[in-house]
Amino acid sequence: MTTGATKAAPVRAGLVGATGYTGMELIRLLLGHHSMELVRVTSRAEAGKRLDDIYPFTQGTRYGGLAITEPDAEDLAAACDIAFLAVPHGAAMEMAAQLHSRGLKVVDLSADFRLHDSDVYEQWYNTGHTRTEMLGQAVYGLPELYAEQTRNATLVANPGCYPTSVILGLYPALKEGMILPNGIVIDAKSGATGAGRKASVPSLFCEVHDSFRAYGIGTHRHTPEIEQELSAIAGAPLTVSFNPHLLPVNRGILSTIYTTLQHEMSADDVQAIYENAYADKPWVRVLPKGSLPALRNVRGTMYCDMALVVDPRTHRLIIVSCIDNLCRGASGQALANANLMLGLPVNTGLDLAPLVP
Amino acid sequence: MTTGATKAAPVRAGLVGATGYTGMELIRLLLGHHSMELVRVTSRAEAGKRLDDIYPFTQGTRYGGLAITEPDAEDLAAACDIAFLAVPHGAAMEMAAQLHSRGLKVVDLSADFRLHDSDVYEQWYNTGHTRTEMLGQAVYGLPELYAEQTRNATLVANPGCYPTSVILGLYPALKEGMILPNGIVIDAKSGATGAGRKASVPSLFCEVHDSFRAYGIGTHRHTPEIEQELSAIAGAPLTVSFNPHLLPVNRGILSTIYTTLQHEMSADDVQAIYENAYADKPWVRVLPKGSLPALRNVRGTMYCDMALVVDPRTHRLIIVSCIDNLCRGASGQALANANLMLGLPVNTGLDLAPLVP
Amino acid sequence: MTTGATKAAPVRAGLVGATGYTGMELIRLLLGHHSMELVRVTSRAEAGKRLDDIYPFTQGTRYGGLAITEPDAEDLAAACDIAFLAVPHGAAMEMAAQLHSRGLKVVDLSADFRLHDSDVYEQWYNTGHTRTEMLGQAVYGLPELYAEQTRNATLVANPGCYPTSVILGLYPALKEGMILPNGIVIDAKSGATGAGRKASVPSLFCEVHDSFRAYGIGTHRHTPEIEQELSAIAGAPLTVSFNPHLLPVNRGILSTIYTTLQHEMSADDVQAIYENAYADKPWVRVLPKGSLPALRNVRGTMYCDMALVVDPRTHRLIIVSCIDNLCRGASGQALANANLMLGLPVNTGLDLAPLVP
Amino acid sequence: MTTGATKAAPVRAGLVGATGYTGMELIRLLLGHHSMELVRVTSRAEAGKRLDDIYPFTQGTRYGGLAITEPDAEDLAAACDIAFLAVPHGAAMEMAAQLHSRGLKVVDLSADFRLHDSDVYEQWYNTGHTRTEMLGQAVYGLPELYAEQTRNATLVANPGCYPTSVILGLYPALKEGMILPNGIVIDAKSGATGAGRKASVPSLFCEVHDSFRAYGIGTHRHTPEIEQELSAIAGAPLTVSFNPHLLPVNRGILSTIYTTLQHEMSADDVQAIYENAYADKPWVRVLPKGSLPALRNVRGTMYCDMALVVDPRTHRLIIVSCIDNLCRGASGQALANANLMLGLPVNTGLDLAPLVP
Repeated sequence: MTTGATKAAPVRAGLVGATGYTGMELIRLLLGHHSMELVRVTSRAEAGKRLDDIYPFTQGTRYGGLAITEPDAEDLAAACDIAFLAVPHGAAMEMAAQLHSRGLKVVDLSADFRLHDSDVYEQWYNTGHTRTEMLGQAVYGLPELYAEQTRNATLVANPGCYPTSVILGLYPALKEGMILPNGIVIDAKSGATGAGRKASVPSLFCEVHDSFRAYGIGTHRHTPEIEQELSAIAGAPLTVSFNPHLLPVNRGILSTIYTTLQHEMSADDVQAIYENAYADKPWVRVLPKGSLPALRNVRGTMYCDMALVVDPRTHRLIIVSCIDNLCRGASGQALANANLMLGLPVNTGLDLAPLVP
Repeated sequence: MTTGATKAAPVRAGLVGATGYTGMELIRLLLGHHSMELVRVTSRAEAGKRLDDIYPFTQGTRYGGLAITEPDAEDLAAACDIAFLAVPHGAAMEMAAQLHSRGLKVVDLSADFRLHDSDVYEQWYNTGHTRTEMLGQAVYGLPELYAEQTRNATLVANPGCYPTSVILGLYPALKEGMILPNGIVIDAKSGATGAGRKASVPSLFCEVHDSFRAYGIGTHRHTPEIEQELSAIAGAPLTVSFNPHLLPVNRGILSTIYTTLQHEMSADDVQAIYENAYADKPWVRVLPKGSLPALRNVRGTMYCDMALVVDPRTHRLIIVSCIDNLCRGASGQALANANLMLGLPVNTGLDLAPLVP
Repeated sequence: MTTGATKAAPVRAGLVGATGYTGMELIRLLLGHHSMELVRVTSRAEAGKRLDDIYPFTQGTRYGGLAITEPDAEDLAAACDIAFLAVPHGAAMEMAAQLHSRGLKVVDLSADFRLHDSDVYEQWYNTGHTRTEMLGQAVYGLPELYAEQTRNATLVANPGCYPTSVILGLYPALKEGMILPNGIVIDAKSGATGAGRKASVPSLFCEVHDSFRAYGIGTHRHTPEIEQELSAIAGAPLTVSFNPHLLPVNRGILSTIYTTLQHEMSADDVQAIYENAYADKPWVRVLPKGSLPALRNVRGTMYCDMALVVDPRTHRLIIVSCIDNLCRGASGQALANANLMLGLPVNTGLDLAPLVP
Repeated sequence: MTTGATKAAPVRAGLVGATGYTGMELIRLLLGHHSMELVRVTSRAEAGKRLDDIYPFTQGTRYGGLAITEPDAEDLAAACDIAFLAVPHGAAMEMAAQLHSRGLKVVDLSADFRLHDSDVYEQWYNTGHTRTEMLGQAVYGLPELYAEQTRNATLVANPGCYPTSVILGLYPALKEGMILPNGIVIDAKSGATGAGRKASVPSLFCEVHDSFRAYGIGTHRHTPEIEQELSAIAGAPLTVSFNPHLLPVNRGILSTIYTTLQHEMSADDVQAIYENAYADKPWVRVLPKGSLPALRNVRGTMYCDMALVVDPRTHRLIIVSCIDNLCRGASGQALANANLMLGLPVNTGLDLAPLVP
């Protein structure tokens, strides 16, 4: 199978951290991105193998024969134009510094550069931040809000999966002052890829399948990220109650967001404000009144589907917001940010139709 | 396989409505209830068949050869001591009246006798109530709250699945005045048996599997039932925001309930009050602090597992409450109520261990 | 999001039968096919609606606003260059005749033109064949075997999902005379999309989830299709034992095929013959010795992954062959055939990476 | 909840190896076995904890407060009447020897005493057998075949899960000489509990869910066990082709068994022979002609459901046999064997209704 030729030489990309689900997803997406070429894939655990040794899904594709190497900043800097960091928080900050200082553009999928305040980082992540000087350089890469800044960035902090669904869901309501900034409750449900690809008993099939559970009620690390970004939108500090749950599905996050209206508003007015806010953002789909989102309609894509429900009995605006946590909430968004940083159309390689059913 | 003999003749039970999931579950439970004997099973659609023709799981059991008959009040009254109604709301009220007037004890699994106010019923169920004279006779059969009344009842309105999880979760907090009675948000997630066993495209495997969605945000029919019962506990009318979601699992409801504390309370104090409130209610398991419930730990049982989380950042008490919607939330609870009505120990036939995994 | 412009005007395609899973899948694939434009979508049940009314996954895409119309041969012939028939067998043959006689190229996804012998059709499908005169015109559209014939065809009988996995799995072994032509046992397992999108109790989520069952042992309608095509390859009539099972997954067929070697052969020799047979067929991936296929590696794609196992203890060659039943086994293959019929590269719009996980 | 009192003091049981799925299942079953009392639970990894610390499903039950201890033969021998070994093969044989020599009855759920020939054991399990002197004492604990021997046994080798489904499926056909003893093909599909509860990437939810794969084609360790037992039934050595697959379900094995009839037989004759063979074996349910088994009908139970299909086109008898791998295929069968060894009715604590759906 030949792939559509592009005139310009493709951008050379490196993936640091191949063995997790975000690394896997980036490989899937880069198989279909014809202005970018994956030239380096690193993993300490799997170095020396071919990519199709560990991922049979790449056999026979343009990346199947790629050698997995040890992560090496010199080599990556020499071989690549841009690097994606799909390694755990803590590990990412050092690698980011080494690559960035060698002139590489960096998209960090970890949490290491998302929080502006290193004290908050240390408090929630239980580890010191060793690259605080870079915090000011990092752009929070949510394309609908920060595309301009991202175009000029050399370091992008790729947003967390939960925050992506929540910030997009609340942006118009907070921006327009429709809702009380405090008292917001977020009940979020995520697929199991969110728990990562490390061997662990609680993530075994038989522990997750045909079950459902809450975890991290009130204590999840995405809380300060959500609060930082929502506070910026609202123009004043706010606190949220953020509460994640684990779904027996592979992909997807659905966040049900409970807010209180500042003043009475009709459902039509709310709908119009949201549709207007996202009129030129094709990845955000405000569903028609009466529809509610389902994970499968965003599976494998960049879409954020959302619905607005005004409940006159309780004076609430309830927002249901839904994304694919791996694509929109991680690797796809990373690729969109890379596109922006490289001067490509943001949707290059990301015009993806949902895998339904 | 012989079953343990009991000295007294077993109670004779009839099941009206065999083809739904609650009927199926009642049959499962009655296979293990040795003081009760299922002697009639009715279904208009399947009359004339044997039970094991439509349910291979009953083949070779004591009920496999039972004949499915047309529902006939005379016949049921003559043959049975108690009847379980597992037919849709609307249909149940007439059948209940016919059986009750013939002296049968009746446990109605539908919504027809749950709401005290027939106007509220008509508003939420879009159909008139034709047996309003019986509303006063019906006991709301939640054993932890109303066992005494149920012992003397001849008509029990079996609680809805969502309300069971919510009322048990909120009972101590409201009773003790720990929380503001208004502003409560309930984010509930149910397995697909909750949608019933009617052929419909949205309930097909490929529409539900590997997906997740919200439905009935702010508009679900269990809302007035929840409000009625919580108001009675709080001693004043209250309004809740109740919001259901559909899980890709067979069984189980997990309700995450967001409340606001009246006064600051420590997690230990909250825990103690709950443990005390349910000290002699073995089916309610207040999990140790730090644990959170999972559906699988209640699968197939009468347990209601719950956890209490005090979030000092937002002054909230978050309650996570979890049941098996078919067993505790429907047929098992119906059987517990029947046990009470018949003078049997409430847990007869219901000492069930969870099917884990 | 703009889609890559193509210089030539895109081919105009019509989809007859929008509401089933194969129709849904064709829409998904055509969203990413930029040399073809879906201009008509028909459904008797949903005529008058927009496509995104029934399929929220198409909202905001280039097809979301498409009007669903009643099937009308005149209108389809005037508006389209090619038509895909995604209607049940029996219904397809008449529509095919009407469209074909009006000069439309037709890809029929049903079974109506797959069997050369109308008596065999009638025996297995329990309905008469009313268009026997067209049987000789139809090409059996398996691209690896019949691409040349398909390029010149105006009517393509799109292969069944099971036969696709089986024929590709057995082709080299039968062609090269490696195995006994008789005594072949095929144990096939399919995802639930194979059962279609009609409302029915046995296809409900709670009937399929967390379960597994055999169905149609020895009696499935794909049997004569498999036998016809394998007989053609072997050069003599043969009989197979074909036995399908229902998996609790959305997509995918895995066929485990048990054969007896004519003569002793080493695993390496078998492997080499298969790799050679499919050397220039990029959609068939012969896995390295020791690997076994998994459904997820072909999810959403055109790949047929297969493994060869020589069991010296039993003198058997066991072939495990695996496809996505909806994409490779139905709509993707239909699109490949359309590409061939229209003079496009066969993989146009079909360079798809598996959705893993 | 009180449990039914029994007059005799309950048998004291010990479980060696609490952390796997078979250990977990034995605990579930012993919660409902009122003539046996679990008094010891051991685990090297979890010693020092309470049982409900690691298994929340036991909270509030009669075993929740049980202390998990290090495995200690002296202590077990002093405290227990019978021990269940739910530890890996290799580890089991030593523990069995230590307990058995101290007078304890032992049911070993591992493979260590299943094979009569220690050479075969070493060849398939890649480890030497250090207790060959005990092989002659062990009874192969398949109740339908060896109940008498088990009643007198002090050491039971509990059958493997796959062999249980296969042997029961083939027993009448081989015993009666209906089929050719050679050329049998077994295509088996197992739920993921069969892979155990060790943390491993291939067993993660996202690796198994919505997928399906073959594994161990022709090389699975249950092959020699199946051949040993079938050879004994047939009265002559035979070889089978045994081929397992991994299902995305928690529990259950469905084996589709392909045989060749010695002589032509009608489906009715085959059916009659099977029904007769299992007439007094209530756990084996020969389904009516035309029905095919489904995993869910045996979920959580001791049932083995089977169907017989005669395919006149291929002269085959196809047997579909289905069990719950954890209950019938492991811990439930272990309990049945314990019942026999202790002089209790075989079904004590095992009169279990399937959890459907």
